[in-house]
Amino acid sequence: MNNFNFYSPTFFVFGKERENEAGKYVKRFGGTNVLIHFGGGSVVKSGLLDRVKASLTAENIRFTELGGVQPNPRSGLVYEGIGISKREKIDFILAVGGGSVIDSAKAIAIGALYDGDFWDFYTGKNIEKALPVATILTISAAGSEGSTGSVITHENGMLKRAANGDALRPVFSVLNPELTCTLPNYQTACGATDMMAHVMERYFTNTKDVEITDRLCEGVLLTIIKETPKALADSSDYESRANIMWAGMVAHNDICGVGRDQDWSSHNMEHELSGLYDVAHGAGLAVMFPAWMKYVMHHDIQRFAQFAVRVWGCEMDFQNPENTARQGIEKMEQFFASIGMPVRFSELGAKAEDIPTLVKTMGLGKNTLGSFVKLTEEDVRKIYELAV
Amino acid sequence: MNNFNFYSPTFFVFGKERENEAGKYVKRFGGTNVLIHFGGGSVVKSGLLDRVKASLTAENIRFTELGGVQPNPRSGLVYEGIGISKREKIDFILAVGGGSVIDSAKAIAIGALYDGDFWDFYTGKNIEKALPVATILTISAAGSEGSTGSVITHENGMLKRAANGDALRPVFSVLNPELTCTLPNYQTACGATDMMAHVMERYFTNTKDVEITDRLCEGVLLTIIKETPKALADSSDYESRANIMWAGMVAHNDICGVGRDQDWSSHNMEHELSGLYDVAHGAGLAVMFPAWMKYVMHHDIQRFAQFAVRVWGCEMDFQNPENTARQGIEKMEQFFASIGMPVRFSELGAKAEDIPTLVKTMGLGKNTLGSFVKLTEEDVRKIYELAV
Repeated sequence: MNNFNFYSPTFFVFGKERENEAGKYVKRFGGTNVLIHFGGGSVVKSGLLDRVKASLTAENIRFTELGGVQPNPRSGLVYEGIGISKREKIDFILAVGGGSVIDSAKAIAIGALYDGDFWDFYTGKNIEKALPVATILTISAAGSEGSTGSVITHENGMLKRAANGDALRPVFSVLNPELTCTLPNYQTACGATDMMAHVMERYFTNTKDVEITDRLCEGVLLTIIKETPKALADSSDYESRANIMWAGMVAHNDICGVGRDQDWSSHNMEHELSGLYDVAHGAGLAVMFPAWMKYVMHHDIQRFAQFAVRVWGCEMDFQNPENTARQGIEKMEQFFASIGMPVRFSELGAKAEDIPTLVKTMGLGKNTLGSFVKLTEEDVRKIYELAV
Repeated sequence: MNNFNFYSPTFFVFGKERENEAGKYVKRFGGTNVLIHFGGGSVVKSGLLDRVKASLTAENIRFTELGGVQPNPRSGLVYEGIGISKREKIDFILAVGGGSVIDSAKAIAIGALYDGDFWDFYTGKNIEKALPVATILTISAAGSEGSTGSVITHENGMLKRAANGDALRPVFSVLNPELTCTLPNYQTACGATDMMAHVMERYFTNTKDVEITDRLCEGVLLTIIKETPKALADSSDYESRANIMWAGMVAHNDICGVGRDQDWSSHNMEHELSGLYDVAHGAGLAVMFPAWMKYVMHHDIQRFAQFAVRVWGCEMDFQNPENTARQGIEKMEQFFASIGMPVRFSELGAKAEDIPTLVKTMGLGKNTLGSFVKLTEEDVRKIYELAV
C-alpha cells in the first residue's frame, strides 16, 4: 500500500426533502451573500429552485442567480459567474444541479478569488483557495458533490480539462434521492456508468496488497449493478435511487482509491470524445472502458479475473484465467448494453475517421497516459480503434 | 434507507514514518500549546514519543506530557488531564496510543472547556465543544481515530459509559502501520475482533434496502478475515498491518453505518464484562457476539444467511436458510478461536454466578437494549447465559 492523505470534510445531508435545510447549512458554513448556480429549466419547473430560495430567505441570506449551465460545462458561463461574484462580493457558491453545474460552480469559486484567468488552474496551476461551494445534487453521476475535482470545456478549442484541489471539496452537499426520480432513463444509466468508471479507474492498479480498497471498490460496483436496473424499471423507486446516490459519492470521494496508483486513461480518452462530439460523459465511458480493458488485460490477467469473479459473478477458470478475465469484460459490456448505453463508436455518433483528431487534440506527444499500463499515442490510437 | 447526516472531517495521514509530520499538522490545525497524552512505557521505549516531541519542537510548539492511560481508561487520569489543561492553558490534545489513550484524550478535551464534571457528557449531556484532538495511532482496533465516540470507566462504581459528538472527531490522525508491528498477537487479534464488531453492530439492522452499506460492511469484514491471520503469522508483514489499520478506521467512522438503524447491544453487554473483569474489549466481544447472534437469529434468518454466504463463504441452503445462518455463526466462532480469542465466559475469566451483577449494573430496568431485537433485562440475562 502506498502512503496517502485522505481528507473528505464535506458535511453530507442525505434524504427526503432535505433541500429545505439548505439555508440553515449555508448559514452554518458562513455564507451571507450567495450565488445560486444552476442549469436549465428543470430545477425551475420542478419548484426545486423556489424551495432553495425560500430556505435562504428564511435565514435572511442574500442571493444572486446564475442559470444556464450546459452538460460538459463551458468556460463562457464560468467567466460570467466570476464577473458577477467579484462585482457583487459573493462569499458562497451554491450549486443546484448535477456534476456539470457543480463543476462550473467550483470553477467560479476559484476564479472569484484570483486576479488572472481561472483556466490557469485547469492547465496545471496549484489551487490554493476558493470561495466555499455547497451543492444540492439532482443527478447521481459525477461524484463532484464529494470530490476535489472539476472538469470544464474551454470554448477556445473545445479543450476539456480537469482541476483538482482540497479547496474544491464542497463544504456541504444535500443529497435527496427523490430529486433524481424524474430523470430520463438514459441519464440515470449514464450516471451509473460514470460512477462505475470512477471505481474502475481506481481498481485497475499496479499497487499490490490493497485488499481493503479492492473490497470497497467491489462493493460499490456490486451495488450499482444491482440497483440500476431497478431504478430503470421503476423510476419512482426511492430505495434504488438512494443506494445509487450514495454509491456515486463513495465512488469518487476517494475512499475507494487511497493507497494505490490510479489509472484515469479511459477518462482522458473519453474527455476527447465528449469534447469533440458533446456526447454524455457516461455514454462515452461505456464505449471507452471495454476497449481499454481488452487492450491492457494481458498486463495483469489475475486482476481482471478477480474483477470477473468478485464483481460479475463469473466462475474462475483455474486452467485458463484469461477466459475468466475475458468473460468479465463481456459481462460488463452486456450490462452497459442492457441499461441502454452505447458500447461502440457508431452507437455514440463518433466516427473512425476522427481518431487522428482525437489523438492529436489529446496532445500526448512523447508523454504517456495512465499508470496501469503507460499508454503511448500509438496505444491510444489502437484503443480508439478497438472502440469503433 | 433512513435520512442521515455524514460528517467525517478528520485529515488522515497514512503510511510509513508519518508520525514525523505531527508537528506540521498540529501547526496547520492551530495548536500552539499541546498536551501529549499517552499510556505505558512502550511509546517511550520505542522512541515514538521522542520522535513526536522532536516534530513539535521543530515547529516551535510548546507541550506538556501526561502518560499513564490504562486499557479501559479511567476517570481519575481524565480529571488530572483536565486540571493540567486548565492550569496550563492547553489549546490542543495530541493522543499517542490506541483507543484507550484517544478516548481519554477526548474526555480531557471536553472537560477542559467545561466548568462542571466531564462525566455529565458520559451520562447524556449534549457535547457542544471540545479542544481539538489529534491522534498518532499505535493499535488498530477501536476506530476512535476517526470516530465521534469516547468510552471511559468511572472509578466510582466501575461504570463504563460512552459519549458521542462531532466535536470529538480528531482534526487529524496519523496512521503508520509500522507502529502496530510490535504488538503481541493477542492484542492484534483483540483489535481485529473489535473492528469486526463495529461493522456487525451496523450490519444487523431492520432497515430495508441498504445494499450500499451492506456491501461496504461485507468488504471490511472480508478484509479483516483475510489479513488478520497474515499479520499473526508474520508480525512484521507491513501490508497486512496496513490493510487492517485502514479497515479499522473505515469500520467505525460510520461510512458503513449511515442510513440504517444500528444495534450496539453486544457492545453494551461487553462493556459490563470489561467493566467488571477489566478484560480486553475485543476479547469480551468475541464472547458476546456469537451468543447475541444465536439468541436473535430467528428475527431475520435471511439477513443471517446473507452474512453467512457473503462474509463467510457458506453455500446457501435454499431448502433451509436457517442451516446457512447457523453455519455463518459457527464459522465466525471458529475464526475467533483460530486467532486466539476466547468464545466462552470461562476462557475470559468471567463467571456464571456474576451474571445477576452484570445485568444489574447495566441498569436496564424497564427499558430495552439494542434495535435489531429490543432486548429486555430477561433477554440480556439469557444471552449472558448462552455465553457461559
